[in-house]
Amino acid sequence: MADAILLTSGASLNAEERGRLASAYPSLHVDGPDAMAGLDPAARDGIRAIAFKGHAQMSGAEMDLFPNLGVIANYGVGYDAIDVAAATERGVKVTNTPNVLNDDVADLAVAMLIAQCRTMRNGEAHVRSGAWAREGEIPLNRKVTGNTAGIVGLGRIGREIADRLAAFKMDIHYHARSEKPTPGWTYHDDVVALAEAVDFLFVALVGGPATEGYVSRAAIEALGPRGVLINISRGTTVDEGALLDALEQGKIAGAGLDVFLNEPDIDPRFLALDNVVLQPHQGSGSVETRRAMAVLQLDNIRAFLDGRELLTPVN
Amino acid sequence: MADAILLTSGASLNAEERGRLASAYPSLHVDGPDAMAGLDPAARDGIRAIAFKGHAQMSGAEMDLFPNLGVIANYGVGYDAIDVAAATERGVKVTNTPNVLNDDVADLAVAMLIAQCRTMRNGEAHVRSGAWAREGEIPLNRKVTGNTAGIVGLGRIGREIADRLAAFKMDIHYHARSEKPTPGWTYHDDVVALAEAVDFLFVALVGGPATEGYVSRAAIEALGPRGVLINISRGTTVDEGALLDALEQGKIAGAGLDVFLNEPDIDPRFLALDNVVLQPHQGSGSVETRRAMAVLQLDNIRAFLDGRELLTPVN
Repeated sequence: MADAILLTSGASLNAEERGRLASAYPSLHVDGPDAMAGLDPAARDGIRAIAFKGHAQMSGAEMDLFPNLGVIANYGVGYDAIDVAAATERGVKVTNTPNVLNDDVADLAVAMLIAQCRTMRNGEAHVRSGAWAREGEIPLNRKVTGNTAGIVGLGRIGREIADRLAAFKMDIHYHARSEKPTPGWTYHDDVVALAEAVDFLFVALVGGPATEGYVSRAAIEALGPRGVLINISRGTTVDEGALLDALEQGKIAGAGLDVFLNEPDIDPRFLALDNVVLQPHQGSGSVETRRAMAVLQLDNIRAFLDGRELLTPVN
Repeated sequence: MADAILLTSGASLNAEERGRLASAYPSLHVDGPDAMAGLDPAARDGIRAIAFKGHAQMSGAEMDLFPNLGVIANYGVGYDAIDVAAATERGVKVTNTPNVLNDDVADLAVAMLIAQCRTMRNGEAHVRSGAWAREGEIPLNRKVTGNTAGIVGLGRIGREIADRLAAFKMDIHYHARSEKPTPGWTYHDDVVALAEAVDFLFVALVGGPATEGYVSRAAIEALGPRGVLINISRGTTVDEGALLDALEQGKIAGAGLDVFLNEPDIDPRFLALDNVVLQPHQGSGSVETRRAMAVLQLDNIRAFLDGRELLTPVN
């Protein structure tokens, strides 16, 4: 096989994405890291780049299957499925696809908040079932504009969310590792203090071990009975058991969730709840954005194989 | 009966709203204009103000039932149910409740757009039915940020919508009776030309005979197969038959509708459509906003009965 073989990994690369990669470089495809050991050793020797997609873990053991591996190009901004420390030890570069998905994720975050506060799911069901004509109006619900919003993790996506919320006349508060230059937003050095100060809490942290359960039971309960939590980051960043308890017991008003532990086999306790908006981790799921992500993934691989500087390196 | 009797009209005034009015002034309650003729003539003589709510027509004939009527205070910004010309002829003042509901209506408009483009109804069903775990991801959908938006009717609500959309990095176009001072938004003197120029068309017209079918079949078709129409004004402002045809035939991509002809007995053709977000005319339906509307309605009545200037007169 040729020198620069590319392995496309992850079951969820779609036909267009596979086609774009395969037409650029000779490529092999496997359904995720578990299938890598089953490849012929000679084929493995040829692999210099991995186009990675999905949430199955890619650890040092899988990297060691490819003696000539130079780059793992992740599809997505979150690369918590890849053991970056193990990659760095082995001299393997990791790239991701930041920025191109910020808008989509922020759009969905804002819409989940409004859908939850304005009971849009109930509204839609009320129209479609004919209950509107039979029973009259739906119960009054909750105003969105003018409340106070908190952002946990003021990275690129957090800022996009905050910029949109500012147009809804919200005071913006945030928590991050350090205070940042912002247009008058209020910094809190503690996530519990942030939750206490706001009506709506948006979780926009990176995933991975460092942020596991970062939005703690104490933070969730500090939001209070009028509080709404929106998570578009990773299921791991929030204490999910505490969140379910709070939602079931009315300790907070509601939630909008695009991410969960053990996706897509999510905790069935969520399905019994009426005070949540549930989305299937589709934050970046527009045609336009997924195409931009696939192109950036491929451009990182091209840059590596051409010996140029990587566009969006992680390590 | 006392001199300043108030008649609360409209079946949909809730207990809190009735209570607020009744504790302020001696009051009678009837379920809408049809029931007015059934009141005792002596009681009718005492009526000086009508607190009006609902969409049943209040014409000159009903006004003539109340020889001492001075003001009809409408609950809502849209007063197309009230024959204002007939009121003016009779020296009867009409008031409405503008501004206090702008935020809620604009919030819902934006959320309907995102929900439609990002297929949030399908996303929610996918999670709740377990299809996510069984079948994988939902189909990719449509990016919202960065498109071009058009506003038909750049009044107070239209401006609130445009201000929010600007935070989603949209170019704003609009059509109104005349060009207005705006932050760089593009004016079109024709609604068809506006529809041709934009991806998303928001209808924020006042209701009434002057705007009946204003968003015409030609305008709807000019939006094109990628176009999305959002209506938060009145069902009358859009040629609804043409809209249904366009949605059924894929001449436009979708719609988000909070208002319909013949609410709540809406055309069943809507219920067969998957490319629409349907809400039960709940644009102003938050607890906070409805309370503000009821207070402003009562404050207009107070001002009239005290001989002070009306807060938000229509005629």
